[in-house]
Amino acid sequence: MSNARKVHQIDGEFRMLQGVLHDAEVAYETWGELNEARDNCILLFTGLSPSAHAASSAADPSSGWWEPMMGPSRPIDTSKYFVVCVNSLGSCFGSTGPASIDPRTGSHYRLDFPVLTIEDVAAAGQKVIEGLGVSRLHSVVGASMGGMTALAHNLLFPEASESLVCISSAARALPFSIALRSLQREMIRTDLAWQNGQYAFDAPPVIGQRLARKLGMLTYRSAGEFEQRFARERVSEERQSGDPFGIDFEVESYLEAHATKFIGTFDANCYLYLSRAMDLFDAADHGGSVEIALGRAGAKRGLIVGVETDILFPIEQQRELADGLVAGGMDVTFESLPSLQGHDAFLVDMDRFRPVLCNFFNCEMEEGKPVANIRSV
Amino acid sequence: MSNARKVHQIDGEFRMLQGVLHDAEVAYETWGELNEARDNCILLFTGLSPSAHAASSAADPSSGWWEPMMGPSRPIDTSKYFVVCVNSLGSCFGSTGPASIDPRTGSHYRLDFPVLTIEDVAAAGQKVIEGLGVSRLHSVVGASMGGMTALAHNLLFPEASESLVCISSAARALPFSIALRSLQREMIRTDLAWQNGQYAFDAPPVIGQRLARKLGMLTYRSAGEFEQRFARERVSEERQSGDPFGIDFEVESYLEAHATKFIGTFDANCYLYLSRAMDLFDAADHGGSVEIALGRAGAKRGLIVGVETDILFPIEQQRELADGLVAGGMDVTFESLPSLQGHDAFLVDMDRFRPVLCNFFNCEMEEGKPVANIRSV
Repeated sequence: MSNARKVHQIDGEFRMLQGVLHDAEVAYETWGELNEARDNCILLFTGLSPSAHAASSAADPSSGWWEPMMGPSRPIDTSKYFVVCVNSLGSCFGSTGPASIDPRTGSHYRLDFPVLTIEDVAAAGQKVIEGLGVSRLHSVVGASMGGMTALAHNLLFPEASESLVCISSAARALPFSIALRSLQREMIRTDLAWQNGQYAFDAPPVIGQRLARKLGMLTYRSAGEFEQRFARERVSEERQSGDPFGIDFEVESYLEAHATKFIGTFDANCYLYLSRAMDLFDAADHGGSVEIALGRAGAKRGLIVGVETDILFPIEQQRELADGLVAGGMDVTFESLPSLQGHDAFLVDMDRFRPVLCNFFNCEMEEGKPVANIRSV
Repeated sequence: MSNARKVHQIDGEFRMLQGVLHDAEVAYETWGELNEARDNCILLFTGLSPSAHAASSAADPSSGWWEPMMGPSRPIDTSKYFVVCVNSLGSCFGSTGPASIDPRTGSHYRLDFPVLTIEDVAAAGQKVIEGLGVSRLHSVVGASMGGMTALAHNLLFPEASESLVCISSAARALPFSIALRSLQREMIRTDLAWQNGQYAFDAPPVIGQRLARKLGMLTYRSAGEFEQRFARERVSEERQSGDPFGIDFEVESYLEAHATKFIGTFDANCYLYLSRAMDLFDAADHGGSVEIALGRAGAKRGLIVGVETDILFPIEQQRELADGLVAGGMDVTFESLPSLQGHDAFLVDMDRFRPVLCNFFNCEMEEGKPVANIRSV
């Protein structure tokens, strides 16, 4: 655990949509300072797998998952804003989740953890904000699952935020994405090592997790990017295994490397819960239809950004979000980016994403670009 | 084995690109009659999983995998053409493959089967044609892997066919498709039941095969079709398993049903070999570059058809094929179909595909549609 990580304790009961937690904890990190007017706070929700460590800080100088985006003189300027990033409820980086110990039983929750919803993740984030004494946010921000969470936050707490930023996200999960995630979960659940969720923490279902991560990597980028990066390049002979079905093409080697990096960093049951939470999310639950729900979102200003090559959260879903929020009276900026990097572009295509966020957050610009010239991660 | 299935025995050695088979067999079916001029023969190659039973016949009245396309008064009119469909070398429906017995050892080949290439499949098909006394084909036709095989046939035997039809196919495998297939193979290979290819035939690696088939189904259709068919529909309560990660959405139920249907019908090792053969295919091997190779294709007329929502063999790859063949002097008809049904559209979107094939093969038309009004399978 890094020195930057703080933990907000939710005393007593935390009512989820389909269950109750006792003495739940939500891990978070902060950057910058809350101003006297208490109106400069940005709440940041993450995608499925990151921790709250979005950017480096004095307390934890290691690079964060959104390092080029956050910091002094970066698009989300931490010399101007007080930024709070929470580790999602249900995750395994300090917040209470299936890998945590249930204080009532002294045992790990595992599959006894209640069904997790995106709304629960949003509500847990709001508890942190209240604990910090912030009654109204400057903005609630998220990408991917985090964008769903930011939207859920705005639907559950329409008065809590002045503005809303959803990046490569969606108002509801659609069947192609549901099917992909369902298949990833099945890969883990059919790994014998999963043992119906009762695996030893030092012997997790790595075969299933490896397959699931590889399928994830395939959906996080685009076919065009793969073609540009790998074409039909073969790995060198010394890296070949001799197995006729082993690694031969560079693209196979790339997936193997990413899967290996992921193994051991994320609890399998937490992954199942968070993945399922995305499938279950449907803004229509907040009004009868997506249109009605979006019309009720409380923010005054919105930024909706998507990428044209995203196959997981396709650009049509960004348009649906933007149109719905506009119809409800929100002042929305909509950006459809022609990045080749698919769903993950918000993490890597900084040349496209930094100016968009910079404009929305009025960062200091130099010739149309953010001042700090940080390389893409 | 059906009464319609015939077997061509290749006596002695059959030299593959990377190995040799002895007394190999190629299963095939035929429809219609060879005319006196011996110039009405169409050779049809299949996708990865079908048998040679493309359509019903007197000898086997069960529906074939391309039933609406082939038969008397259908787009490929068997009262006019003599159609030969071969089961791919390496498959398990009568042709020699990894599940066959090696006559030299008396044991099943399994992983001792030589590396299989699309070129080998094409050459084995040509053996059948020669055995039937056909020296020049009217056309060589294939869809998906079969389209790669038809192209390979035209590159290996440029004088053997008057025309070439490639549907939803490609001049080479690209990294996104390679990665998807590699992942499917890994699902099977990491199933403990696979036992490095030495599984008992009555205890195959069904967990891996089930996962691989589901991923296949996800790439054979399109996200738009899934949305139209399933939206966020839930399965009825009595079909739910009670398992929090079990089947909940209709799209999950659809994948489950298709995977269940597939299990037991296809040998796992054969699947691995055929899947890998697609990855290895690159027309550039026949000339130094795809452009040069396509310029050498021998057919005089060509039909290239693709579907705009195909993510496995994207429409750009169909354009590449068509452009390359045109540059080589072939008279090419190119059709880009706006079907919602993705890669599998050639099997199901008959309203779009039948007229295209009908035009190319000069079938009898009635108001722009084929006469026989067969329902999509």
